Amino acid sequence: MRATIIHAPGDIRVEDRPEPRLIHGSDAIVRVAASCVCGSDLWPYRADQGPEEPKPIGHEFIGTVTAVGDDVRELQVGDFVISPWANSCGQCPDCRNGVQVACQHRAAWGGRDESGHDVEGGQSEVVRVPNAEGTLFVVPELSPQRGGTRTADEELLKSLLTLTDVMGTGYHAAKVAGVGPGQSVVVVGDGAVGLSAVLSAKLLGAERIIAMSRHEDRAAIAREFGASDVVAERGKAGAEQVRELLGGVLADCVLECVGTKESMDQALRSTRAGGHLGYVGVPAGGPELPLGVLFSKNITVAGGAASTRNYIAELLPAVLSGDLNPGRVFDSVMPLENAPEAYRAMDERRATKVMLLP
Amino acid sequence: MRATIIHAPGDIRVEDRPEPRLIHGSDAIVRVAASCVCGSDLWPYRADQGPEEPKPIGHEFIGTVTAVGDDVRELQVGDFVISPWANSCGQCPDCRNGVQVACQHRAAWGGRDESGHDVEGGQSEVVRVPNAEGTLFVVPELSPQRGGTRTADEELLKSLLTLTDVMGTGYHAAKVAGVGPGQSVVVVGDGAVGLSAVLSAKLLGAERIIAMSRHEDRAAIAREFGASDVVAERGKAGAEQVRELLGGVLADCVLECVGTKESMDQALRSTRAGGHLGYVGVPAGGPELPLGVLFSKNITVAGGAASTRNYIAELLPAVLSGDLNPGRVFDSVMPLENAPEAYRAMDERRATKVMLLP
Repeated sequence: MRATIIHAPGDIRVEDRPEPRLIHGSDAIVRVAASCVCGSDLWPYRADQGPEEPKPIGHEFIGTVTAVGDDVRELQVGDFVISPWANSCGQCPDCRNGVQVACQHRAAWGGRDESGHDVEGGQSEVVRVPNAEGTLFVVPELSPQRGGTRTADEELLKSLLTLTDVMGTGYHAAKVAGVGPGQSVVVVGDGAVGLSAVLSAKLLGAERIIAMSRHEDRAAIAREFGASDVVAERGKAGAEQVRELLGGVLADCVLECVGTKESMDQALRSTRAGGHLGYVGVPAGGPELPLGVLFSKNITVAGGAASTRNYIAELLPAVLSGDLNPGRVFDSVMPLENAPEAYRAMDERRATKVMLLP
Repeated sequence: MRATIIHAPGDIRVEDRPEPRLIHGSDAIVRVAASCVCGSDLWPYRADQGPEEPKPIGHEFIGTVTAVGDDVRELQVGDFVISPWANSCGQCPDCRNGVQVACQHRAAWGGRDESGHDVEGGQSEVVRVPNAEGTLFVVPELSPQRGGTRTADEELLKSLLTLTDVMGTGYHAAKVAGVGPGQSVVVVGDGAVGLSAVLSAKLLGAERIIAMSRHEDRAAIAREFGASDVVAERGKAGAEQVRELLGGVLADCVLECVGTKESMDQALRSTRAGGHLGYVGVPAGGPELPLGVLFSKNITVAGGAASTRNYIAELLPAVLSGDLNPGRVFDSVMPLENAPEAYRAMDERRATKVMLLP
């Protein structure tokens, strides 16, 4: 089977790999219907140093179950599944507590499972999924043996694919920041996660949504997703613009969707006293949080890596009905074979997010 | 009138000062019934450098209104009042949002009001209270002209006095950490605020309350306040003790009530993935929060300076009925004239908290 491998920074190749087989009783094999490149995949791509050895890459994929291990009870061959970016057992105290990202038996896509066996990356034709029942979320409507009669077109694939990561991550930011009716929201970051956060804020009933964006094409999607205002200024000027738009106060909820020192600073500057900052940007060597500012302003900071599996049940019906179209964050679709070009396009900001079709 | 003045680190004196008079229409004059020394008063007392000039000190007091300005409508002469540590106007957007500590017109006890006039410290016989109606909370039961028939004995004075700061601050930690029925709570810090946090966690229905204490006298009060367990270990060993007590998981809610690098580290180590850390320890040049740890563990950090006025209405009835006795944190009562000894006793940890009676 074909799989995307990172050899070194900037060096992505699609290569032949042995087709994965069941190893553990709790495994499933999934034939990938669509995968994609995540903003965080660009980190090793842009890193100073490459992986010690060539490594499969990708952690966002959807597809069909083609085999299940002996211990698998609920999943069936033929199930169409969404595979959240965080593999999780579903049984340990952290999973039962709803924090699958802290799963004590978590396997790493493109890395190893708990027992040390290799696990494929998501940007592949076929993936072995450890902890299959704790991880995979079945979409019965797309699973014929469960009576499903639909097939997913490209637009639906895109939106389903966002539920593995970016849409669930943006939704996490909004949920932990307590976004709700009547509230003012600032979203820092206009990548796929930031745009998903805008859509999530709208879905949760926010009254005013300010997207901080400097890219007209992304700002246009933000507006389509529900942003009432777009602010291009940054730093103190950006925060003052927010204050002016909100009639003299800063935002009730700020969603940080980047992960840099600058974006967190922007988020803190934009949050009113007593406000909530939901952050999901993976901290990129960023600053530690300035406790003095948080203390005097009583800013609540919540978020982190999103257990996106939690949100699939909540978001899926609207995706299936077409009321919710988070797949709009994909502005490019390529065959899996073009993965190297997908990385280049995202790295050079020619694309916001690329879907790969095997 | 007599007032406590800090001249330099370690140099506290009780001196004659002019009796304060009304300056603004929104002022009230309060004759102090009781005041006390806060843990945070020990900072300038222990500092390397003293204030530029001798400065009144103290921010926790209760007493009786003896005069009100022309713009005061609700407060009356004769009202027995609780004066929260944070002076606040009650009208600005931050006050209306429930964050009085961020009040845009806040006056500083022992400092200046918005118009630059001196304000007495709370460890005085008489205090001018700017923003009187936004700040003072009336206790009708102790106000004869409102039909109040009670007088406060020393035990009641103690408990009422905690509502100005320490009890409200401990309660803030517990509330923002989402303490509720069935939850496990760790309290870091066994000073007056930490003990109040234990009492608050009990009041909010926590199932298990672990107090981290190494002082047997304070641990005894913690147990009396509702602590189910006391842990003396610190650092990794302390967190492992918590995990063992809780059957293999860390705490749902951790209340940080100290403000040092070590206490925050202890709090983070003790919080389970997806847990809540409520902090009220004033950051003492402490560390910034390590975002990487928060991110991977999805720890929510909330708290900061407590707007204790918010909690008085909720806590007062139980204090008046005698069901709630936060005043137990006072282990010493002295006349105001002995303020220098009160500071020494707290500095040398011979006392947890000292009430001063004018």
